[in-house]
Amino acid sequence: MAAPVVDQGFQGEIICSGDELISGRVADVNARYAAARLHEAGLRLQCITFLGDAAPLFQETLAQALRRSRFVIITGGLGPTADDITVEAAAAVLGLPLYKDEYVLRRLRECLEKRGLAWEERYARLALVPQGACLLDPEGAACGFFLRHNGTLLYFLPGVPREMRLLFDRYVLPPLLQAAAGGEAVCQRTLRFFGLHETALETVAQGLCEQHEGLCVGYYPNFPETHLSLTLRGADSQKLEAAMDEVTRDLAAQAGNAYLGAATLEENVGQVLRSRGLSLAVAESCSGGLICHRITNVAGSSDYFLGGIVAYSNQAKMDFLEVPAVTLETFGAVSAPTAQAMAQGAAARFRADLAVAVTGIAGPTGGSPEKPVGTVFLGLATPHGVKTRHCRFFGSREEIKILTAQTALDWLRLEIQGEGMREEGKG
Amino acid sequence: MAAPVVDQGFQGEIICSGDELISGRVADVNARYAAARLHEAGLRLQCITFLGDAAPLFQETLAQALRRSRFVIITGGLGPTADDITVEAAAAVLGLPLYKDEYVLRRLRECLEKRGLAWEERYARLALVPQGACLLDPEGAACGFFLRHNGTLLYFLPGVPREMRLLFDRYVLPPLLQAAAGGEAVCQRTLRFFGLHETALETVAQGLCEQHEGLCVGYYPNFPETHLSLTLRGADSQKLEAAMDEVTRDLAAQAGNAYLGAATLEENVGQVLRSRGLSLAVAESCSGGLICHRITNVAGSSDYFLGGIVAYSNQAKMDFLEVPAVTLETFGAVSAPTAQAMAQGAAARFRADLAVAVTGIAGPTGGSPEKPVGTVFLGLATPHGVKTRHCRFFGSREEIKILTAQTALDWLRLEIQGEGMREEGKG
Repeated sequence: MAAPVVDQGFQGEIICSGDELISGRVADVNARYAAARLHEAGLRLQCITFLGDAAPLFQETLAQALRRSRFVIITGGLGPTADDITVEAAAAVLGLPLYKDEYVLRRLRECLEKRGLAWEERYARLALVPQGACLLDPEGAACGFFLRHNGTLLYFLPGVPREMRLLFDRYVLPPLLQAAAGGEAVCQRTLRFFGLHETALETVAQGLCEQHEGLCVGYYPNFPETHLSLTLRGADSQKLEAAMDEVTRDLAAQAGNAYLGAATLEENVGQVLRSRGLSLAVAESCSGGLICHRITNVAGSSDYFLGGIVAYSNQAKMDFLEVPAVTLETFGAVSAPTAQAMAQGAAARFRADLAVAVTGIAGPTGGSPEKPVGTVFLGLATPHGVKTRHCRFFGSREEIKILTAQTALDWLRLEIQGEGMREEGKG
Repeated sequence: MAAPVVDQGFQGEIICSGDELISGRVADVNARYAAARLHEAGLRLQCITFLGDAAPLFQETLAQALRRSRFVIITGGLGPTADDITVEAAAAVLGLPLYKDEYVLRRLRECLEKRGLAWEERYARLALVPQGACLLDPEGAACGFFLRHNGTLLYFLPGVPREMRLLFDRYVLPPLLQAAAGGEAVCQRTLRFFGLHETALETVAQGLCEQHEGLCVGYYPNFPETHLSLTLRGADSQKLEAAMDEVTRDLAAQAGNAYLGAATLEENVGQVLRSRGLSLAVAESCSGGLICHRITNVAGSSDYFLGGIVAYSNQAKMDFLEVPAVTLETFGAVSAPTAQAMAQGAAARFRADLAVAVTGIAGPTGGSPEKPVGTVFLGLATPHGVKTRHCRFFGSREEIKILTAQTALDWLRLEIQGEGMREEGKG
């Protein structure tokens, strides 16, 4: 892995407050998210500190950070309750007075009103901001603030992960990159892979690094996918984009079917369905609705997704998917013939161009020696016929559901993207 | 919040070193494990610090820990490679000379021989120990050491999680418990709430704290729920359990319908359905399969869950749920009459005792002035009749899906748990 071209002195730290973090009750996700994003962008962290909700220790830690770090990211403790000590404690360290921000107050009132909630005086704490702070405020969904103190950049972010990520991506990372690069342009892309082991991916990436000078690569297992982060730095952002396109093309070629690109699997599938004018139906047993849920996470999915049947009982498989009783009796609900009949039934009943079906044993009970927990059959009906696949997954009930949905969507993707649709029922 | 009854002075901290921890590449497991075990045992941590493999920062952090903590647990950096800086850096801070421990050296040689590996000179670093340290050495599987410095207890543990846990459980926790004057018992519970704002919950909890001496409360927003962590400390663990039962009862009474208890919403629903011998079907439009997905996350849900229809298109609503075309034409797909028909249709077609239905606009497009994004109608069919509800949610497409599924499951829970099932179609 090539060393990133970056100002080595530009180091920062993260301070996370919350009793839940030092009691082991909650796994940290904020610091890890920020650390990973900073690392893939070539920015250096010195340390991450987790603190309970106690003002004196927070103040000691913040004062120390101000002495040794060029940027400090603080998460948590911005809420309205008594244990939210961050703002007042920080203002004391920075020697800044607090004021009640009228804009935040108004926005809070509007927000409460819209939701039919009454104003309470303690909400006013949420509008306390140190003098000179710059609000980080995307559409009122979350609120944090930024301060510069003796050349150190300070970012105060909420502890709720969804809000923290939103603010971090929008208001923290871009200016930090600018500050660190001293004007240099940075091109960063995160690409998704499914079905290729991390070490195999590493071999591919190592080859890429030898071909492309200055390429920085990071690996992030993100069950059930592996994500790869690519960073290039240079003077000219257009040239960087072109170089990154080339890297991406090389990578896609070498990773083959495992390469998903930057979009999610369901976005990929949706894009192809839309561009080909194809409609989709789903029949789920062991994945229990997760395939439908993922497909409908994509805005506009109603354009190609007609619907799905979560046929948990045998009766539902017969009633809604026209699975013949004799198929269920002869082969069982978890079998290739049932998966095939489910896919055909879904396509027919929804009058859909394509239908994907899954039936299996998510566990933890219900397995047998012949059909152990994790046994899953997939069916895929296309205008050219119907195919089935047999899989064996390992893991918890939840993991088996996730792997089933992922594998079904990935199969569908390959089928509609590639050769599959043009050939007759191979595979 | 009332102060816990424990020796407040006996506080500790954890320092973890490893570049992988501050790059976000690897999720910490050691600190979280130790923090959880310490918390359960009633021992208090002030903070957890993650550092890269850099000696100066490690030394600064250790020196600070020695000033403010009664015990310090250090993990990582004990290996044979150049980036393993812990032992030398710590010895410098503590003012202790290092010596090569002959016993460790001999054990290392034996270990290598057994594995058929040749001795290399760099392994000798593994035998370097500060003068006066006590080796923590269970069957040569791992190696750490213990030191006492001006009354502070210092534990140096390997970074490999399996080894760290082994040493922690055997050599760290028991003496710390002894040292923490009394080793009081701790009773901790985390309870879930939905539909009560964090600040309203705080009011309830503050009242509880006044009634129950020594009760410690923490709040954790966990979209779309709020979680509350309750801790009691004392000499007698049976008495603590009884006191906690009382706290929980009080809390449940005061929070009313918002109180979910310790189980997830879908577990709650499943439990009641199972105990009442009731079966369930689901009809989803805007939640897109998420309700089915959540219900089927519970092991054994096939006992009461018959299945669901994700009816994204109007055609599917008519074909699978018997929604009359005239209802769709007159009132639209997003309307109370359609939600009602969907619930009735699902109950009838699945022959289920209960059916829950949702139809709405998840966005970001598809809204209108009369039915803006976030408009959702719910339907609930029970043996006593069918009801509908109108909701307006705010947020992203994903958040609206989550809120829709949560509200539907919560309504179902209240209906089957409470009065609802015994009364005729009120509400």
